[in-house]
Amino acid sequence: MYNKEADCGRLLPSQSLLVLNSLPVCSPLPGVSSATPTEEMNGAGNLMDFLDEPFPDVGTYEDFHTIDWLREKSRDTDRHRKITSKSKESFWELIKSLLDAWSGWVVMLLIGLLSGTLAGVIDLAVDWMTDLKEGVCLSAFWYSHEQCCWTSNETTFDDRDKCPQWQKWAELMTGHAEGAGAYVLNYFLYVLWALLFSFLAVSLVRVFAPYACGSGIPEIKTILSGFIIRGYLGKWTLLIKTVTLVLAVSSGLSLGKEGPLVHVACCCGNLFCSLFSKYSKNEGKRREVLSAAAAAGVSVAFGAPIGGVLFSLEEVSYYFPLKTLWRSFFAALVAAFTLRSINPFGNSRLVLFYVEYHTPWYMAELVPFILLGVFGGLWGTLFIRANIAWCRRRKTTQLGKYPVLEVIAVTGITAVLAFPNPYTRRSTSELISELFNDCGALESSQLCDYINNPNMSRPVDDIPDRPAGPGVYNALWQLALALVFKIVITIFTFGMKIPSGLFIPSMAVGAIAGRIVGIAVEQMAYHHHDWIIFKNWCRPGADCVTPGLYAMVGAAACLGGVTRMTVSLVVIMFELTGGLEYIVPLMAAAVTSKWVADAFGKEGIYESHIQLNGYPYLDVRDEFTHRTLATDVMRPRRNDPPLAVLTQDTTTVEDVEALIKDTDYNGFPVVVSRESERLIGFVQRRDLTLAIKTARQKQDGVVSSSVVYFTEDAPQLPASNPQPLKLRRILNLSPFTVTDHTPMETVVDIFRKLGLRQCLVTRSGRLLGIITKKDVLRHMAQMMNQDPESIMFN
Amino acid sequence: MYNKEADCGRLLPSQSLLVLNSLPVCSPLPGVSSATPTEEMNGAGNLMDFLDEPFPDVGTYEDFHTIDWLREKSRDTDRHRKITSKSKESFWELIKSLLDAWSGWVVMLLIGLLSGTLAGVIDLAVDWMTDLKEGVCLSAFWYSHEQCCWTSNETTFDDRDKCPQWQKWAELMTGHAEGAGAYVLNYFLYVLWALLFSFLAVSLVRVFAPYACGSGIPEIKTILSGFIIRGYLGKWTLLIKTVTLVLAVSSGLSLGKEGPLVHVACCCGNLFCSLFSKYSKNEGKRREVLSAAAAAGVSVAFGAPIGGVLFSLEEVSYYFPLKTLWRSFFAALVAAFTLRSINPFGNSRLVLFYVEYHTPWYMAELVPFILLGVFGGLWGTLFIRANIAWCRRRKTTQLGKYPVLEVIAVTGITAVLAFPNPYTRRSTSELISELFNDCGALESSQLCDYINNPNMSRPVDDIPDRPAGPGVYNALWQLALALVFKIVITIFTFGMKIPSGLFIPSMAVGAIAGRIVGIAVEQMAYHHHDWIIFKNWCRPGADCVTPGLYAMVGAAACLGGVTRMTVSLVVIMFELTGGLEYIVPLMAAAVTSKWVADAFGKEGIYESHIQLNGYPYLDVRDEFTHRTLATDVMRPRRNDPPLAVLTQDTTTVEDVEALIKDTDYNGFPVVVSRESERLIGFVQRRDLTLAIKTARQKQDGVVSSSVVYFTEDAPQLPASNPQPLKLRRILNLSPFTVTDHTPMETVVDIFRKLGLRQCLVTRSGRLLGIITKKDVLRHMAQMMNQDPESIMFN
Repeated sequence: MYNKEADCGRLLPSQSLLVLNSLPVCSPLPGVSSATPTEEMNGAGNLMDFLDEPFPDVGTYEDFHTIDWLREKSRDTDRHRKITSKSKESFWELIKSLLDAWSGWVVMLLIGLLSGTLAGVIDLAVDWMTDLKEGVCLSAFWYSHEQCCWTSNETTFDDRDKCPQWQKWAELMTGHAEGAGAYVLNYFLYVLWALLFSFLAVSLVRVFAPYACGSGIPEIKTILSGFIIRGYLGKWTLLIKTVTLVLAVSSGLSLGKEGPLVHVACCCGNLFCSLFSKYSKNEGKRREVLSAAAAAGVSVAFGAPIGGVLFSLEEVSYYFPLKTLWRSFFAALVAAFTLRSINPFGNSRLVLFYVEYHTPWYMAELVPFILLGVFGGLWGTLFIRANIAWCRRRKTTQLGKYPVLEVIAVTGITAVLAFPNPYTRRSTSELISELFNDCGALESSQLCDYINNPNMSRPVDDIPDRPAGPGVYNALWQLALALVFKIVITIFTFGMKIPSGLFIPSMAVGAIAGRIVGIAVEQMAYHHHDWIIFKNWCRPGADCVTPGLYAMVGAAACLGGVTRMTVSLVVIMFELTGGLEYIVPLMAAAVTSKWVADAFGKEGIYESHIQLNGYPYLDVRDEFTHRTLATDVMRPRRNDPPLAVLTQDTTTVEDVEALIKDTDYNGFPVVVSRESERLIGFVQRRDLTLAIKTARQKQDGVVSSSVVYFTEDAPQLPASNPQPLKLRRILNLSPFTVTDHTPMETVVDIFRKLGLRQCLVTRSGRLLGIITKKDVLRHMAQMMNQDPESIMFN
Repeated sequence: MYNKEADCGRLLPSQSLLVLNSLPVCSPLPGVSSATPTEEMNGAGNLMDFLDEPFPDVGTYEDFHTIDWLREKSRDTDRHRKITSKSKESFWELIKSLLDAWSGWVVMLLIGLLSGTLAGVIDLAVDWMTDLKEGVCLSAFWYSHEQCCWTSNETTFDDRDKCPQWQKWAELMTGHAEGAGAYVLNYFLYVLWALLFSFLAVSLVRVFAPYACGSGIPEIKTILSGFIIRGYLGKWTLLIKTVTLVLAVSSGLSLGKEGPLVHVACCCGNLFCSLFSKYSKNEGKRREVLSAAAAAGVSVAFGAPIGGVLFSLEEVSYYFPLKTLWRSFFAALVAAFTLRSINPFGNSRLVLFYVEYHTPWYMAELVPFILLGVFGGLWGTLFIRANIAWCRRRKTTQLGKYPVLEVIAVTGITAVLAFPNPYTRRSTSELISELFNDCGALESSQLCDYINNPNMSRPVDDIPDRPAGPGVYNALWQLALALVFKIVITIFTFGMKIPSGLFIPSMAVGAIAGRIVGIAVEQMAYHHHDWIIFKNWCRPGADCVTPGLYAMVGAAACLGGVTRMTVSLVVIMFELTGGLEYIVPLMAAAVTSKWVADAFGKEGIYESHIQLNGYPYLDVRDEFTHRTLATDVMRPRRNDPPLAVLTQDTTTVEDVEALIKDTDYNGFPVVVSRESERLIGFVQRRDLTLAIKTARQKQDGVVSSSVVYFTEDAPQLPASNPQPLKLRRILNLSPFTVTDHTPMETVVDIFRKLGLRQCLVTRSGRLLGIITKKDVLRHMAQMMNQDPESIMFN
């Protein structure tokens, strides 16, 4: 069923692309009609009674179909009602009902534990494998460079890095640590390891779990909005994504682990859902768990539990009741503390980039901060446009047919270009960490190579602004090259057939730009104390500019430009710094970046990919402001054949079977008679098929000419007629209706808020047509293309 | 119209009490019918065209009525569409449209600035006036005790408190600082000042702004859910609430400023709404601003901007789109920074209770933390039940008639009992601050009177556990008395006719209990190092128990028990401590407290007060799990007169006028004919009245016997008939309908999510009845009373 050759992200080649990209206008196309209503709203319980034995797939959805939120909620209420009433019968039932009430918390605990553990393992493995590209630890080969040198007793960081236990490949193989030969050998082995890792990653993805590629966030957003993609959150995907994520990050490609960690956490969530029928049998409840799991994923990615919850709320989730808020928070905390007890960073810190700055910021610095925001917004726009264009090219040309070759090629280019520059050679998160850092007295980084003034003796923590030394100028050049490299290569990397997150590369671009700006401002302030802009706050010898803060602001701006996160972004950054002190610069940059990026296009990278892939995702944030009415959107259109309906007591079994055979709608409205067209209910195709099949087998007297009736009492028929078949129990008596004059903005609101799949359109009580979720999405896309400017001022 | 003698909170004596408390079952009662539908959904724009000149109150709601969220949203979209299309016409219009797009941010900025300033002024004034009860600063009478002694150069806190510039009243008047006479004089003046302040407060509230009483949060929740209470957020209320809040807090009553600060911030929000027609003319948009203002209020109350946003999201708001999240965050930050720049606490800290602990917590300590959670839950239940019982008594007996006397009496008792005990004499926030504090080397508080071991010399920050000295035992007794006093007096204080918040008293109760438990555990650990529970983590001479942390955990537990806040509570506490380190104890206590309290009753104090006052509030958290159908709830009931409807083209002007005169429904369904009962739309009373009035005045030929028609074309009438009157433009063609078989749980969901006022009920296209929001609320209350147990396992 699923085409394993499909591109990463192009999961629905036949259906949804057809629906949204090629925009078929006339309705009863096979590709589109599969999106028409199935399953009635509240009749699942009844159906089970009627059919005696429960069918295995009653109440489930087909793959690539949309769920009905109201129905799922209603089913859960039924289940809950049953348990509550049973709990009064016996003590054992009471215990069972209590267990049921607690199962949500148990699932959260398990998700937190497993995703925290996986994140810790991934961190450790990535550390080790990234260093493996350069050398090996002689005392214990499974130690990373840092772990290997922990026991070393050198004082400065730089010396400690060169501890004797750690040997580069060239040194180990030839005995020479320096020289051109050693350099070339190291270079060669670095590229070779990178190619090996990425080849392994892409092969594993292709062979075992095609869904494990990409960041996963666009698909998770779609799933949480009520779409079914079977296997996307399966055990196999979990395993392969975890392994290949390590390989992909270690290979040195310009990608991060944050997005995939969210996917991994959601897989954990899905896994634990299957332990409790409360969650495994209800797609709505399952999505509550998945929302919380997404929060746990971000929580472990950054060590920011509150930020994780807000990320889930702001960016990923669709239906987020307050109960989920509280549970997400619990899961995020458990995950964060599990990760901390594994302590992969070796500093018993919770956060990925721990920073501590010693000086406050000044009002005048808001100008460069806002400029960084503008840069972030522009980079976001550029990245989204270029990446989407490239991904579209991949889908439509020969390129998409050779995913392994593509990954190998990009890895090769990345590794070859990255090795000579020390800032690109190391892992991206190390780079960001160094850029965020404030220069302390013991810092041996090139970036901290300032010229010391021997006349000044000051405490360790108070480093005044000083003239930059040659190391800093050198670093600036290398950083500028790294910036260009990262900007270009990230565009081609995101969307390849390996797990790839966007947070870290985006942050790296911003951090490099920010650090460059920060050093520039610092040197300007040092050399021109008398300029009016510096005069008031920056005296000679004072420590007034913190370049690390600029890097952080830049990172926030770029991440904001790409993802359009706002509150969650600022809160994540706040949790990294742990102080409200720097929240204003971060906010200024984030908000500027969002505004600048929004001016060029409303959609973030995730929404763009959702659109590119044609997922049926109804964005909560899109405001629909056009003057169209329900009658403009409903089907049948003017020249279409009339709507396929059943009558309440005149259709025969034969007719029904013919209707089922001739059409592939997933459900049919039932009316009083074809003349009056008064709606009485909605019946779904699957129920109809099952019911007729069962009746033909088990109920005597039901033949092809039997009349099917949906009323309470059997219709008055001549005695010669065969026995009629009562189908009222599979009829949904409360289908959702709107009038034909209802403005589409209201219809969109109703679909969004109630999570409907379809809605019937009436006029003065007469049934006119039907609107499905895909009709709504298609209409919105049409309107958007007609008038792109109208969305600018929302 | 408004009865100024009404109790605090009993704002709707005639209407809503009748609706929810006395539960009239048969429908067409005058009190209830005023709650039936008014105003159509999307016709406001049309109506304006039709009536040529815009009427001043078209599109507004009457006092104590519910708004229609869908209609407000639709109106805003219309407005926005108009501005967008105009903006293409000229440069000036473009500027105007940009200003309109930015007005939201401007409002947020203004709210932040004003509420931050007000909070700062309130803090300063409360500080000064609280100290005024005890003495006066000689160097400058407007200095508080602390400010007065800032310049003093004593070293310990205790000595600094006794600086010569500050004189107690007895010392100033008689020259003797010590002795029985001075004590009595001080005592007397303390009580006198307290009585004066509270008398002023209650008088101002009674005379100028009756709405300024109470915490305001129940009413704000109701308003945000879509109810109109005119004047509740007015300028006058803002002014009086600010002034009386200072008086009430200074009088030493057991109340806090946090809830009222939220009210004050919302008043600011409402004030600035009136600057922009976008917000002042749209009740839906206005509520978005008010949600953000509530966040700003909590932000300044605690110095916790993220906590404020989450409080608004979790506790107060009803409709909270993502756009509001971002704006709330902005407003909360601006408010917090404005407050910080005013610097009322004199320590340039943002937060109300800044704490820093030096030791981690240990797993074994979770046991006392969870016990504190249980205590918090029990206290929450006790408080809510007792307070509600007392408030009900106040409403139903003579007590409610003498609000001034009540306030004076409670203040007198409070002051008389509070003075002898040093822990109740000072302001409650100072008390909490001291209880939260860790004992440092320079601490002179009684609570830190430990016996020093002269053999040990250690750095200042590392204070090992030591045996308690007499001061600590003394303090324990006084704290125990203070605990009992606070528990009892708070029950009687909350709900009096002065501004009164609950956060601080609840936190005080918890902090006292927590500190007592903390000291007990600490002493147990000191004296019994060898016990198995302490052995593993508490060596002799180590600093293993932090009693201040217990106080904090206790405060969180009690606050959680009373308000049932969860995430926002933990985040506020997290912002106070600034570290993730202590989040697990806080969470353990908060979650235990919530579970314990929920076991005794699902509602927090705010929901209980909302119910007590009979506000039409549809709680998002209440789950409706009964098996009733729309047909069980709709009106008319079985024995009622039939539904009042209009026909589309047979009713005369006379008939309409008679209908308007005879009934007081706020709207009427329009059907094709009385026989077919097929619904074509809904028309609102106010529009009907206005339209007929205008037509009679301006349109020739319209007389009493004219036929009113709602169809596109005029009906075929005999030539002798007078000219018919076309009223299609005031007809809402898209009324919301459900079928009679729709389960009530779905109906409740629809009302909640779409913010409907009413919904029509049909069967096979025939109109059967109507369900209003109040019908839904009444039904929910009935069901809840029938089966209170069913809510336990949600």
